[in-house]
Amino acid sequence: MSTRNQYERNAKVFKALGDSNRLMIIEMLQSGERCACEILEGLHIGQSTLSHHMKILIESGIVAGRPEGKWMYYSLSQEGCEAAKNLLDDLTRIKDNGNRVENKCELSLHSLRT
Amino acid sequence: MSTRNQYERNAKVFKALGDSNRLMIIEMLQSGERCACEILEGLHIGQSTLSHHMKILIESGIVAGRPEGKWMYYSLSQEGCEAAKNLLDDLTRIKDNGNRVENKCELSLHSLRT
Repeated sequence: MSTRNQYERNAKVFKALGDSNRLMIIEMLQSGERCACEILEGLHIGQSTLSHHMKILIESGIVAGRPEGKWMYYSLSQEGCEAAKNLLDDLTRIKDNGNRVENKCELSLHSLRT
Repeated sequence: MSTRNQYERNAKVFKALGDSNRLMIIEMLQSGERCACEILEGLHIGQSTLSHHMKILIESGIVAGRPEGKWMYYSLSQEGCEAAKNLLDDLTRIKDNGNRVENKCELSLHSLRT
């Protein structure tokens, strides 16, 4: 069980991935760092829309940004991507509490029989 | 490059995970199938809010539902969870196109030298 805040934090990571424009941006960054100008051109969106999407992606930890000259440069954060994958692994892991209890029962039964 | 529709479909999977209530529901389902009544009780939400969340989770493929008597029973879909994990793996994989081009250049250079 996590705290409400932890669920909110985790939800933020997936919310960042839950938008088709942001998925397109991530795909662009898979082949390396990109200048904001390239993303703007590739996606045919305005600068304020791009800023909005990049803010969400950076806050999720999946993307890192650095300023250079008059532009920002963005890249995938390996650490952030690993964290997101670990989070999804943890979330979708089937907990075998039930099985373990069953096994214990079988063991007791076995020891009663022998 | 995917089509706009594919990005929308993929975004839907992550959007389903981008909500703290839905993350709590997924966590409940990690230990096995649950009746809607148990989820309602565990989350202190109303039936219409639960229906809304379950619709999104089922549409994403992550959760499966089956009716029994007057209630719905929900469980994690192993297939859907695997699909989501594969999607995230694909999305965050660094493409080494750049390196491969560099290697090719090195090879040409090597063949020129020898």
